[in-house]
Amino acid sequence: MYRQLNESTVIQYLKKIPKFESLINNFTTAKEVGDGNLNFVYFIEQLNNSEKLVIKQAVPYLRCVGESYSLAKERMLFESKSLLQFAAIVPKHVPKIYHVDNEMSLVVMQCLDKHIIMRKGLIAEKVYSNFAEHIASFLSEVLFKTSSLYLSGKEKRILMQNYIANDELCKITEDFVFTCPYMQHETNPVNQALEVERQRVQEDDLFKLEALILKNKFMNQTDALLHGDLHTGSIMINQEETYVIDSEFAFYGPYGFDLGAMLANLLLAWVSHFERSNNKEYQKWLIDTAIGFYQKFEEKFLTLWNQHQGGGLVSSGFCSEILFQKYKKHYLLEILQDTIGYAGLKMARRILGIAGVAEIKDIQNEQARVRAEKFALNIAKELVKNRKAISNIFDVLPILQQEQQKYEQQRNYKAEHHTVS
Amino acid sequence: MYRQLNESTVIQYLKKIPKFESLINNFTTAKEVGDGNLNFVYFIEQLNNSEKLVIKQAVPYLRCVGESYSLAKERMLFESKSLLQFAAIVPKHVPKIYHVDNEMSLVVMQCLDKHIIMRKGLIAEKVYSNFAEHIASFLSEVLFKTSSLYLSGKEKRILMQNYIANDELCKITEDFVFTCPYMQHETNPVNQALEVERQRVQEDDLFKLEALILKNKFMNQTDALLHGDLHTGSIMINQEETYVIDSEFAFYGPYGFDLGAMLANLLLAWVSHFERSNNKEYQKWLIDTAIGFYQKFEEKFLTLWNQHQGGGLVSSGFCSEILFQKYKKHYLLEILQDTIGYAGLKMARRILGIAGVAEIKDIQNEQARVRAEKFALNIAKELVKNRKAISNIFDVLPILQQEQQKYEQQRNYKAEHHTVS
Repeated sequence: MYRQLNESTVIQYLKKIPKFESLINNFTTAKEVGDGNLNFVYFIEQLNNSEKLVIKQAVPYLRCVGESYSLAKERMLFESKSLLQFAAIVPKHVPKIYHVDNEMSLVVMQCLDKHIIMRKGLIAEKVYSNFAEHIASFLSEVLFKTSSLYLSGKEKRILMQNYIANDELCKITEDFVFTCPYMQHETNPVNQALEVERQRVQEDDLFKLEALILKNKFMNQTDALLHGDLHTGSIMINQEETYVIDSEFAFYGPYGFDLGAMLANLLLAWVSHFERSNNKEYQKWLIDTAIGFYQKFEEKFLTLWNQHQGGGLVSSGFCSEILFQKYKKHYLLEILQDTIGYAGLKMARRILGIAGVAEIKDIQNEQARVRAEKFALNIAKELVKNRKAISNIFDVLPILQQEQQKYEQQRNYKAEHHTVS
Repeated sequence: MYRQLNESTVIQYLKKIPKFESLINNFTTAKEVGDGNLNFVYFIEQLNNSEKLVIKQAVPYLRCVGESYSLAKERMLFESKSLLQFAAIVPKHVPKIYHVDNEMSLVVMQCLDKHIIMRKGLIAEKVYSNFAEHIASFLSEVLFKTSSLYLSGKEKRILMQNYIANDELCKITEDFVFTCPYMQHETNPVNQALEVERQRVQEDDLFKLEALILKNKFMNQTDALLHGDLHTGSIMINQEETYVIDSEFAFYGPYGFDLGAMLANLLLAWVSHFERSNNKEYQKWLIDTAIGFYQKFEEKFLTLWNQHQGGGLVSSGFCSEILFQKYKKHYLLEILQDTIGYAGLKMARRILGIAGVAEIKDIQNEQARVRAEKFALNIAKELVKNRKAISNIFDVLPILQQEQQKYEQQRNYKAEHHTVS
């Protein structure tokens, strides 16, 4: 029977599970540390070994809003299933799962206390030299090995069955990434300084047409098993290691959605540092990482495709090597263009929609924050509207430069204006 | 417990089911009439009312090959579920289902003995004036009302769960529509007179690239609940009524697949009559029907879309009327182009692959049959390779005319040559 745990009952719970019983002693403590929107997270310390444990439990409502916003606790099912699935493919970048209790909607896993949430690291100007390589490994392995390029039609359909009922969290994305931010909606934050920009997006038919096309793909294209919410807050990191967590949004969707989320969040970090630190060297690392992880993803994905011929899509002997290479190019181009589009929508929704991101939202000076918001939004619009003109990840750079120039002109003009008056 | 029925045990089976018990008398007979590839079908006659019944039972192998080719009898599950689903949406064009027995892999349904299999009707030059209207109704209603244009994301996912495990029959399509006919494969029929054409297709990179793109959509795009095998052999018809049967291939896939199957089979009938009857008036009806059903489908689909605003994809208030119309155009164009591509592959596979169609295969004169085969294959190749240039269903006509001219020149040349020699 489900019951919501707290700092004291969580210890009693663990004690009753044979594999954990012997680890508990009189000093063992549980500390609630969840700072996310959805769940409760406990650090279990002072165990009879040097390890710590984490317990994550879902509650039947949206934690950040309260019991009035119900959200089925069964979401934990999708999280534990997908973490186990990811771990089977690329164990290096997924926390170890020690115990899953579906009835209690909880999972006991590796404690990542030598790591921090990547978003916080990026705000603090930390460089993670291995990150591009790590996340490219994670994404290429997971996306390739859950797709019909690697699995037979049947194997893929069996996997899909595990995630097809993840309606509630898919609906959150459908609403809050693809829809509400670009129309009049009560969930959108009021931000007087952005009202003109908001209005422009609402009347921008090209932007909204692409939003519909990308939403349709999100709802009806089942390329691979996605994390579903792969922002820098879903990554635990230090100099050596990168772990992907919080995969309750996992579902079968278009490749570009996870890739786009990653790209968007690195670009948001880059934008934020124009107002946060103006640390050019750090910003260069951010851009190199945003471009570099995608480049590495493509390389690794292609390498996997060249190595594995068993998938249901391209039967062995179906086509000549020349045609196969041509098809791979065509296939990767569509992933790239989708990635660009999803990145744009992911950035736009963070500015216009209900869920902002700390690196921008927490900029204290209001003028500076609004400048960063407009800057990010302009990039977002360009990515969404011009995605079909992009044939290489490097094509993103001129868009960023162009928007950076506009932003700097604006800022200098304002600065001068301020000096004169 | 499953057991395979025969003409005598089927009566005993019915007697034990309360709702049928009172219908059985001493004269009630069962006659096996299945001429399909997969199942056994019994007509139950002389019941205690004027009605007849049909019982369809699946066996755990492919009937036309024998017990050596195993095929799970659970396919009947997908057939009965989908027929019930179709009937809930458009009852006029689906036989009534009286009883479903999943354990026995059978379904008891309305006997359509005043109707014939449409393929046979088309061979016999029968005109069905209502058919275009009927099949357009069936397709527009079913495709629209099982899509995210009508259902919420959640409702659609719940429906999808019913069909996602239909692996075996999807695999048959993946292999025998998209793959084997266009490569060297043991299942392809040996047809010396077509070997040059077969070779050409195998080396035609543009054709095979499109075949891969369309196969990828088949495997990864879940627009709507499809019949999955909508040829003229899956339709029971007379002057007044049209019924869709045999939906064991039902699954969530791209709209264009069912539409393309329908188009392909009407075009194959048209081609066949150049060698069968040369009945120009009848051929005109076939072409009018091939174009007309699609035109009506588009109209009806758009009307439904204009009437219903509740689907998960386009939220009410999201976009202006002008943008919405633009998006609908874009959406319908993709359906059309997919339809053309799938029609081409469906035609090509009937010529090059394991499963031929009676209207062409049964042409007795070998020269005539090969002429028809080449004619059909040429149309198929044009449709597959030029699908992206088509923006209106009428754009198919110049392709047909061009191939008809080539075919007639060829025939006349051969005829003259024959006269001279």
